[in-house]
Amino acid sequence: MYIGIDLGGTNIAVGLVNEEGKILAQDSTPTLNQRPYTEIVADMARLAKKVTEEAGYTTDDIRAIGIGSPGTVDNDNGVVVYANNIALDHARVAEEFRKYIDKPVNLENDANAAAYGEYIATGNGAKSFVFITLGTGVGGGVVLDGKIYRGFNSAGGELGHITLVHDGEPCTCGRKGCWESYASVTALIRQTKKAMEEHPESLMHKIAEENQKINGRTAFEAAKQGDPAGEAVVKQYIRYVADGISGIVNIFQPEKLVIGGGISKEGDYLLKPLEEFVKENDYNKHMPRTKIEIATLYNDAGIVGAAMAAAGNLSV
Amino acid sequence: MYIGIDLGGTNIAVGLVNEEGKILAQDSTPTLNQRPYTEIVADMARLAKKVTEEAGYTTDDIRAIGIGSPGTVDNDNGVVVYANNIALDHARVAEEFRKYIDKPVNLENDANAAAYGEYIATGNGAKSFVFITLGTGVGGGVVLDGKIYRGFNSAGGELGHITLVHDGEPCTCGRKGCWESYASVTALIRQTKKAMEEHPESLMHKIAEENQKINGRTAFEAAKQGDPAGEAVVKQYIRYVADGISGIVNIFQPEKLVIGGGISKEGDYLLKPLEEFVKENDYNKHMPRTKIEIATLYNDAGIVGAAMAAAGNLSV
Repeated sequence: MYIGIDLGGTNIAVGLVNEEGKILAQDSTPTLNQRPYTEIVADMARLAKKVTEEAGYTTDDIRAIGIGSPGTVDNDNGVVVYANNIALDHARVAEEFRKYIDKPVNLENDANAAAYGEYIATGNGAKSFVFITLGTGVGGGVVLDGKIYRGFNSAGGELGHITLVHDGEPCTCGRKGCWESYASVTALIRQTKKAMEEHPESLMHKIAEENQKINGRTAFEAAKQGDPAGEAVVKQYIRYVADGISGIVNIFQPEKLVIGGGISKEGDYLLKPLEEFVKENDYNKHMPRTKIEIATLYNDAGIVGAAMAAAGNLSV
Repeated sequence: MYIGIDLGGTNIAVGLVNEEGKILAQDSTPTLNQRPYTEIVADMARLAKKVTEEAGYTTDDIRAIGIGSPGTVDNDNGVVVYANNIALDHARVAEEFRKYIDKPVNLENDANAAAYGEYIATGNGAKSFVFITLGTGVGGGVVLDGKIYRGFNSAGGELGHITLVHDGEPCTCGRKGCWESYASVTALIRQTKKAMEEHPESLMHKIAEENQKINGRTAFEAAKQGDPAGEAVVKQYIRYVADGISGIVNIFQPEKLVIGGGISKEGDYLLKPLEEFVKENDYNKHMPRTKIEIATLYNDAGIVGAAMAAAGNLSV
């Protein structure tokens, strides 16, 4: 039995996870991201005990705890080195957590944890596996031979921060033209707004009014109803997504590549044109091809991945 | 003792390599790339025996043979599946070679072999290592935990075929805007010619005339002599190179990244501005950084890497 903790800017989600990666019980509490990290860790431990007991177990049944945290994580030492929107700089999270439950703690970057969760859920033991999230940003992770790839400094796997347009749109990371600044939901909203300005006749205006906001679904909804401006936005957006994925396929030729995040809920409407683009742009024309799928765990990926990564780190 | 063979479109280069990755003897012969592959393999074996005997050994002293071949290589079966400019499609190279010298044969893609050679020479056991060649194309390879990363279909590691400019210059691979189509020598020559057309006053004209050709050094030579148009070409070219490398660093955060190929002979003139760009554009601001260096083996990387990869495949 393992505890998986997904620490987000808004909520702390905690789950009790069995050896097969199934969540037996889960709960969450607001992060209140500006308070001292020791309080955040105390809440993590409190919830970990709560879900364990609710499922009829005690902390003696826990073999290890996995925590996925935003920011730069020093996996070897269980320290969050830097995080953007939580007061976690140089936070000795693993050590602090063990004051409450004295079991092995494995700390991962949250995107790497989510990638590992999807690997457990949909990877089928693929020797090489890439997970990509299309959310507020573009993130992801790489699992090779069943292990999270972290780079030598545990800062690797920032798949959204490769160039898609040299000297293009400014990215939140400080670079220009990152894939993230074309393929994130944030970028899609920007693209949608621009098309709406250019097309006052577009159905997107009516859809945005009904929903009282412009979001990542506005253009997709319009496109599905045959709106030409909406279709153009979606078509170009999918090309941005696919062009980045195509490069990642050329680098890794992973056995499987899984797409998660809010946009992935568009399912085949996203996947089919994307697969076609990637197939046409695959450098590999003569060997078996990467399977591309939609993620299955969604919000649970972080909990499952954190727990299972802790399990994996025990066995080595 | 190992044999390393670097099969190129023009020459077959064969070396006798010791356990430490040093070449003890080497020789080469023209590939004559349109003849049947069985004849090419016969020449490989003939040269392998020749260099072995010249160094005072016999084929009994050979533990394994490594061959680096262009194209798509099925490493598991020792078969070249497809090659662009040598008649090697579905060539059972490993099996054919063993008719002459019956020792274990390991077949690699040539860029992967070269990457492994540089890893042996300059990697110092780096846990993660990336090699990039700036030549006619942009190629490279990735070595993780001392093993060549090949992807599930042994077609991985095509580092030059990630996008640098969405919908940009057509690439020889069929994609648009590949990093290769901005950062290869071929691309640099295109960029140089364009600048020469725009700047009839540029020193590049005189340099090209003296050398009787425009090549990858024309703009660099002009820039070093203070020619503004030459400086502009070199500055932009290095930005193209660095932007791609920056993305690769964000993905892999490799302990070391080594740059080879013709352009790498520019040394610090290339490396210093490149390092500065990569540092500024590194997503990782808080952990140790990737070391970037110039390759040391140049043309010998293929022989050494093929031989040492064969040695590595024996030990597992």
